[in-house]
Amino acid sequence: MIRMSSSFIRTLRDDPADAEVASHKLLVRAGYIRRSAAGVYTWLPLGLKVLRKVEQIVREEQDRIGGQEVLFSALQPRAPYEATGRWEEYGANLFRLQDRRHDDYLLAPTHEEMFTLAVKDLYSSYKDLPAMLYQIQTKYRDEARPRGGLLRVREFVMKDAYSFDVSDEGLDRSYELQRAAYQRTFERLGLPTVICKADAGAMGGSRSEEFLHPTPIGEDTFVVSDGGYAANVEAVTTVAPEPLDADAMAALPPAREVTTPGTGTIAQLVDHLNAHEVREDGREWTAADTLKALIYMLHHPDGSTQPLLVMIPGDRQADEKRLEVALAPSIAVPFAEEDFEKHPALVKGFTGPVGLGEDTDSGVKVLIDPRAADGTRWVVGSRKVDTHSIDVVPGRDFTPDGYIEAAEVRDGDPAPDGSGPLRLTRGMEMGHIFQLGRKYAEALDLKVLDENGKQAVVTMGSYGIGVTRAVAAIAELTCDDKGLAWPRSVAPADIHVLATGKDAAVFEEAERIAGELEAQGLTVLYDDRPKVSPGVKFKDSELLGIPTTVVIGRGLAEGVLEIRDRASGEVTEVSPADVVERVLAEVRAG
Amino acid sequence: MIRMSSSFIRTLRDDPADAEVASHKLLVRAGYIRRSAAGVYTWLPLGLKVLRKVEQIVREEQDRIGGQEVLFSALQPRAPYEATGRWEEYGANLFRLQDRRHDDYLLAPTHEEMFTLAVKDLYSSYKDLPAMLYQIQTKYRDEARPRGGLLRVREFVMKDAYSFDVSDEGLDRSYELQRAAYQRTFERLGLPTVICKADAGAMGGSRSEEFLHPTPIGEDTFVVSDGGYAANVEAVTTVAPEPLDADAMAALPPAREVTTPGTGTIAQLVDHLNAHEVREDGREWTAADTLKALIYMLHHPDGSTQPLLVMIPGDRQADEKRLEVALAPSIAVPFAEEDFEKHPALVKGFTGPVGLGEDTDSGVKVLIDPRAADGTRWVVGSRKVDTHSIDVVPGRDFTPDGYIEAAEVRDGDPAPDGSGPLRLTRGMEMGHIFQLGRKYAEALDLKVLDENGKQAVVTMGSYGIGVTRAVAAIAELTCDDKGLAWPRSVAPADIHVLATGKDAAVFEEAERIAGELEAQGLTVLYDDRPKVSPGVKFKDSELLGIPTTVVIGRGLAEGVLEIRDRASGEVTEVSPADVVERVLAEVRAG
Repeated sequence: MIRMSSSFIRTLRDDPADAEVASHKLLVRAGYIRRSAAGVYTWLPLGLKVLRKVEQIVREEQDRIGGQEVLFSALQPRAPYEATGRWEEYGANLFRLQDRRHDDYLLAPTHEEMFTLAVKDLYSSYKDLPAMLYQIQTKYRDEARPRGGLLRVREFVMKDAYSFDVSDEGLDRSYELQRAAYQRTFERLGLPTVICKADAGAMGGSRSEEFLHPTPIGEDTFVVSDGGYAANVEAVTTVAPEPLDADAMAALPPAREVTTPGTGTIAQLVDHLNAHEVREDGREWTAADTLKALIYMLHHPDGSTQPLLVMIPGDRQADEKRLEVALAPSIAVPFAEEDFEKHPALVKGFTGPVGLGEDTDSGVKVLIDPRAADGTRWVVGSRKVDTHSIDVVPGRDFTPDGYIEAAEVRDGDPAPDGSGPLRLTRGMEMGHIFQLGRKYAEALDLKVLDENGKQAVVTMGSYGIGVTRAVAAIAELTCDDKGLAWPRSVAPADIHVLATGKDAAVFEEAERIAGELEAQGLTVLYDDRPKVSPGVKFKDSELLGIPTTVVIGRGLAEGVLEIRDRASGEVTEVSPADVVERVLAEVRAG
Repeated sequence: MIRMSSSFIRTLRDDPADAEVASHKLLVRAGYIRRSAAGVYTWLPLGLKVLRKVEQIVREEQDRIGGQEVLFSALQPRAPYEATGRWEEYGANLFRLQDRRHDDYLLAPTHEEMFTLAVKDLYSSYKDLPAMLYQIQTKYRDEARPRGGLLRVREFVMKDAYSFDVSDEGLDRSYELQRAAYQRTFERLGLPTVICKADAGAMGGSRSEEFLHPTPIGEDTFVVSDGGYAANVEAVTTVAPEPLDADAMAALPPAREVTTPGTGTIAQLVDHLNAHEVREDGREWTAADTLKALIYMLHHPDGSTQPLLVMIPGDRQADEKRLEVALAPSIAVPFAEEDFEKHPALVKGFTGPVGLGEDTDSGVKVLIDPRAADGTRWVVGSRKVDTHSIDVVPGRDFTPDGYIEAAEVRDGDPAPDGSGPLRLTRGMEMGHIFQLGRKYAEALDLKVLDENGKQAVVTMGSYGIGVTRAVAAIAELTCDDKGLAWPRSVAPADIHVLATGKDAAVFEEAERIAGELEAQGLTVLYDDRPKVSPGVKFKDSELLGIPTTVVIGRGLAEGVLEIRDRASGEVTEVSPADVVERVLAEVRAG
């Protein structure tokens, strides 16, 4: 029994100054957590109980699919992370340090390397596989902008699991096991999630899905269709029109240059065209008829650079994150004034693709939006000041070096699988499962003897759940303007017993009820504070958010107690003789 | 049920190359742990289960005395540790790092500061106290010489608890609660411990006791007497003779200088005296009649230095650790050749205390062994080459600046409490409880309103148990030449079921028994490996060290199974019908 009179619990009336989101405000005000540095938090008693309950649900679902729990150190030597390239790739997000001998160490953000080496150490045959290992462990990431209390922090608890298989089919099976385990886990946590196709990003690998929890405070944008498509915006592919063949393209009107003075922007260009160039079908010109030029210097991992021209429909903004993912591991930096001076083929405000491309002398790489398929007709810059070309046809008038997903995704865009129009939604990444494939096993030489006695490189999957973040997300989802409102599965106590007033009989009865509930196996938070007003106790009870509260107060003299449901606000009157049975029934109902 | 056929468990026949102690060898060979860097270990599945069981016992005993569990981050900002001076004091033992903004952080070795600040944050009145808070958390210490597997590591799990009281009496009560909790904890862990008076050292404070587990591989030396005295060697005080008064001293023979050529060592001096100086009572001279000079440059925390002469009985070695503790926070560095040149009052090989001391012009501080009480008679150097003085009497011929515990403690020395002769014993520190007093509360301004409405500085206690080390100590204590042999309280499984041979009936029966034992609430490690010989299974079973093994093998055809007790080696034959009941009885017997 947790007695509030002697517990390390204090509630605050005011929101912490640095808090933006509700879960952060309430977790601090209710005395669940405290900040100790930017993105670093202390777990106070009630908060720690929630954290452990979330961990235990995650653990049980990992155990259920045959996961075996291990525990790696947070402090790791540099060498294995050097071998896979992550020592560098992680950049400023990695906490690096040296020991007294000036050897390099890091605080691990994830443990792909160490799991790979552990399996290499213990296993040697295909008969040892498949294997599914996991840990629930403290991780470190030096986030540039910690935010939202527990939502984005620098020290956090994460479950990371890794699967090891000989064959691709085995990896698929392991992946499906985890996928199902994640669905059960988030269901038990009471966290709705959408499984989104994700870009595998820097981790490499093939199949990759994120479990996104839809919430307006989410940092990720994803898309869904009514037909069931869901994807991270970075992973959305554009539905392109069917390309025309060469004959059909030849039959289209030829490209023609027009003078377009002072049309450095798309809006100016469209206005000019509508004023001066009548279309054959009489339609107005729109931004969607144009391709706009985005000009970058592309920095390749080997240190070399190359001018890059990206053409996207003039009615769309560029999506920097989609562009970044599409170009990785190369990095695109927008052209500077002096870059234009060095590359006169690119004319600021009037650049188009014709005459450029890697197979021309220009040295400029040209990537275009998939909507600009062969045979489509566009207005583009002519690479001369105050000049554009109309009816430029990709595949006829120029050949791009490739297509790129760099344009923004919009509400109403068609889903790539034909399942209807897309809706843009905000979400928070709760889990991520992906097929690493053989990247880590190759880098660290993890091989086993296969059925034919030959060395085979092992294929791996990686599966993470942010445990700390899940606590915040559950708090955020379930809270209201009065406070936290935990689901039973993760509440720090099953029952909150309030003794109100000053009557000794009330406290005796509350003590009896709390004791009987504990004897029945429930955990009880008992507000036994002698000199605190009923109003404060009610407010604290709402703030603390235990699912069910039993109030023993003035009504006791008439044989009436109250059972209050935190989530619904429902109040039920009950007699002292019935209260334990009634509470047990509520808890069992879930 | 843990099935060995698919578990991440592999045993090794050979000891790891870097292992010195049995627990280290066996924990690695049995697949409980793996080294990931110097002093940094990975917990494999069986090891993690033991670690969690030890943690849980520690937790339950903390909860029993009203401890409230919290969890602080390992990553901590510099400021609070700066405020208490520990950022500097910890020296090279502290892992320090910077984040992306170049702010200083550390990986906390203990959390006095953070607990103090948390209480300051939540509490404000004497009514809130006493409070007992604890965490079971991963700590970091950059040990110069990690050793012994888990015995001395750089990342480890520790329980650290802190008590907060208004009064000294309250602190005494909190201290006694923890003392009793520690006794119960180590008893449940099966670890005999001796409670030793300890020097509070750099942590400050008054009462301080270590729970030392007597073991030949221990790094600490402590003393015990038959009468119940126990202390860390650093905390032992010397039994000094009663001092004589001035008249009695005046009546003693006067000091006299004698020429002692070539007697730079005590042995040479004693030989010379026995050859040339007959004593009044005819006894031989021994080293115990002399005081030997230890000469240091004392470095004070404020940066100043001072020559220091320490005189200890000539028959004893200096104990560097006792000396260090006695002089802290100043540090003594042995005199170098050039120091002698600068300080001619100190004559190498022939230095004595007469004419030195802080109230002389010499500037040399003189500290002597407590045995050299006023009125005792000694042979000492005369501060002239080849010359000593006989019958030099402290209190008459010179006045020391103080006494110092710098001489070694020996078997047979008297206990300071008169409880008999001391025995020197090797031990390993398993826990440490001490009264911090108000040092941290003052440094971090932790005050509460007292009963009179005045601000009172809180007094604190600090209580640590090395959880990781306890795992190693238990392994070390209980193992034998065949392998580990866990006590039931921390074993990774209750029962090891072995199916031996190739008979399908054997495996079916083993499966049934393992299933029934699990249904009874026991945890079972089941060796179901189909193609492993009985010999290997027996060897692995002994190495893994589960307390009770059930062997199902050839005897099954005749209705005979075996129950083996790992610790005693006892083998009991039993029928398949009785086996579950018999095993349950054994487990319940504990």
